[in-house]
Amino acid sequence: MSQRAIFGIVFRQLQSNFSSFSSSINNVSKNYRPAITHIFEARYYSSNLGSKGNKEDEPAQAVKFNSNFENVDGQNGKAVVSSYWGVPPSRATKEDGSPWRWNCFRPWETYKADTSIDVTKHHKATTFMDKFAYWTVQSLKFPTYLFFQRRHMCHAMLLETVAAVPGMVGGMLLHLKSIRRFEHSGGWIKALLEEAENERMHLMTFLELSQPKWYERALVFAVQGVFANAYFVSYVVSPKLAHRIVGYLEEEAVNSYTEFLVDLEKGLVENRPAPAIAIDYWQLPSESTLKDVVTVIRADEAHHRDLNHFASDIQCEGHELKEYPAPLGYH
Amino acid sequence: MSQRAIFGIVFRQLQSNFSSFSSSINNVSKNYRPAITHIFEARYYSSNLGSKGNKEDEPAQAVKFNSNFENVDGQNGKAVVSSYWGVPPSRATKEDGSPWRWNCFRPWETYKADTSIDVTKHHKATTFMDKFAYWTVQSLKFPTYLFFQRRHMCHAMLLETVAAVPGMVGGMLLHLKSIRRFEHSGGWIKALLEEAENERMHLMTFLELSQPKWYERALVFAVQGVFANAYFVSYVVSPKLAHRIVGYLEEEAVNSYTEFLVDLEKGLVENRPAPAIAIDYWQLPSESTLKDVVTVIRADEAHHRDLNHFASDIQCEGHELKEYPAPLGYH
Repeated sequence: MSQRAIFGIVFRQLQSNFSSFSSSINNVSKNYRPAITHIFEARYYSSNLGSKGNKEDEPAQAVKFNSNFENVDGQNGKAVVSSYWGVPPSRATKEDGSPWRWNCFRPWETYKADTSIDVTKHHKATTFMDKFAYWTVQSLKFPTYLFFQRRHMCHAMLLETVAAVPGMVGGMLLHLKSIRRFEHSGGWIKALLEEAENERMHLMTFLELSQPKWYERALVFAVQGVFANAYFVSYVVSPKLAHRIVGYLEEEAVNSYTEFLVDLEKGLVENRPAPAIAIDYWQLPSESTLKDVVTVIRADEAHHRDLNHFASDIQCEGHELKEYPAPLGYH
Repeated sequence: MSQRAIFGIVFRQLQSNFSSFSSSINNVSKNYRPAITHIFEARYYSSNLGSKGNKEDEPAQAVKFNSNFENVDGQNGKAVVSSYWGVPPSRATKEDGSPWRWNCFRPWETYKADTSIDVTKHHKATTFMDKFAYWTVQSLKFPTYLFFQRRHMCHAMLLETVAAVPGMVGGMLLHLKSIRRFEHSGGWIKALLEEAENERMHLMTFLELSQPKWYERALVFAVQGVFANAYFVSYVVSPKLAHRIVGYLEEEAVNSYTEFLVDLEKGLVENRPAPAIAIDYWQLPSESTLKDVVTVIRADEAHHRDLNHFASDIQCEGHELKEYPAPLGYH
């Protein structure tokens, strides 16, 4: 029985972790579920959690979800796990009192993008390290431009899946360094994690406008595996090189969003209404369009460009990041 | 020359990354600095950054630091990197208008701990996985109790260096999964990162009260290397097992802080005034003591216990975390 339990645990986890773009495997997992979950029978039936949860972009379901947590008898063994653990569902409302639709960010994490930021700024590569970082990014840039050409939406979506990695890897390494060395971080952990979070919100925004095709999912799956590990190693060996590479990567991101805007101006890309998630995240007026969204996203990327070149400069000058507090509060 | 540059980059980075508890090696790096930084001559002298930055617990130096960023001629080549990159120093003030002393957390991230939380709650291990998780934690617990005995401060400090790892590893893996699978996270990424951040603030608090000895630093260095990797693997193979283990780990953390409080009551440990960082982080009254600090830290740990058992329960019942929004806003 216990062997079967181990088999069940490992088998289902491998499914849920590695079957990232295969709906067919998800179906398999559904078929297997009854056979496996009866191992957890006692606790499986000790809950009245709905088998379907809420999708964050569907407030109707969100209400349904909340009700799952409310009709609870917390006294007997049939308590809902959340009441058993005293973990209430996360609730928030907009200024107008309507329910907050997003779990991935909260009202107090929204902000107005600084669109006055200079989007043409470029760090001139002078040292060997700068040139190495610059040409690394250039060599990565051309195949992607060749692959996507004018398909800006797909380009942006895949760009964000890559751009969301460095902040998280850097933040994690600085966090581990901070607790390992018993020292403050100067706020850089948070600044890098905010960058990663912000890039992920860009991705969630584009997801509302277009769905990736199977070969794009496959590409991201492969690219992330390589890029995340490569960036991890480069950050361990030379954080200043890693930050410089991201700085140049963000410069290219700004360029590609500028091209996106040009084609929106020309009418080569349809200027659709802004998705609800973007209007809430950037505090945009309700009549905003895709053009407004791309403009604020480009401003975010320009900010990340400056942040990472700044981080690299601090270290190139022989200082540690923690000596110079990170700019916080703007993503 | 370029070879020397590579040597310089790699050499200094390996130092700053791996010489975590060796002041002697830091001295070596200082001796080498002139030899290496002249590679970056042009940009080294294009900055008037002080060679010393601010320690976050020294507002006087913080002001000095800010002035570094202010007396700038942004027009010619001698601009400070921050003005060149338009990255202003991070500024915040307290309610009374006095400058905010901490870069590792901001006024809007402070909170009042929920000390009404049930600190006796225990998840009864019923399934094979639960028992495996429970006994894993128990087997880790006894040697640490044996090692520290009544040296609560050291015990707490080393406990936090371990407790700050799972949230960061789990958050990173969920983040990568979210961008790889083009799906929302239900807020769990943020919840886990907030947990890691909170544990790190516990560590920063204890650092104000006691400094780790060299063998404690060595121990943490070794423990982190093993634990971070072990937890990474366990989270990839079985997130629900990983969350269960953290749930039991936090139960033990609550117990050890309860013992800490008992010895504070008995007067076996001196009940010193609360450090400034704790008073700001938990919005404590200025006359708070170590006992108040340990009480709010224990409440935080109890919250992490519930969050992680909840996360494990959701998955044990065949659901995905994203189906049930994470509780956010409380660390």
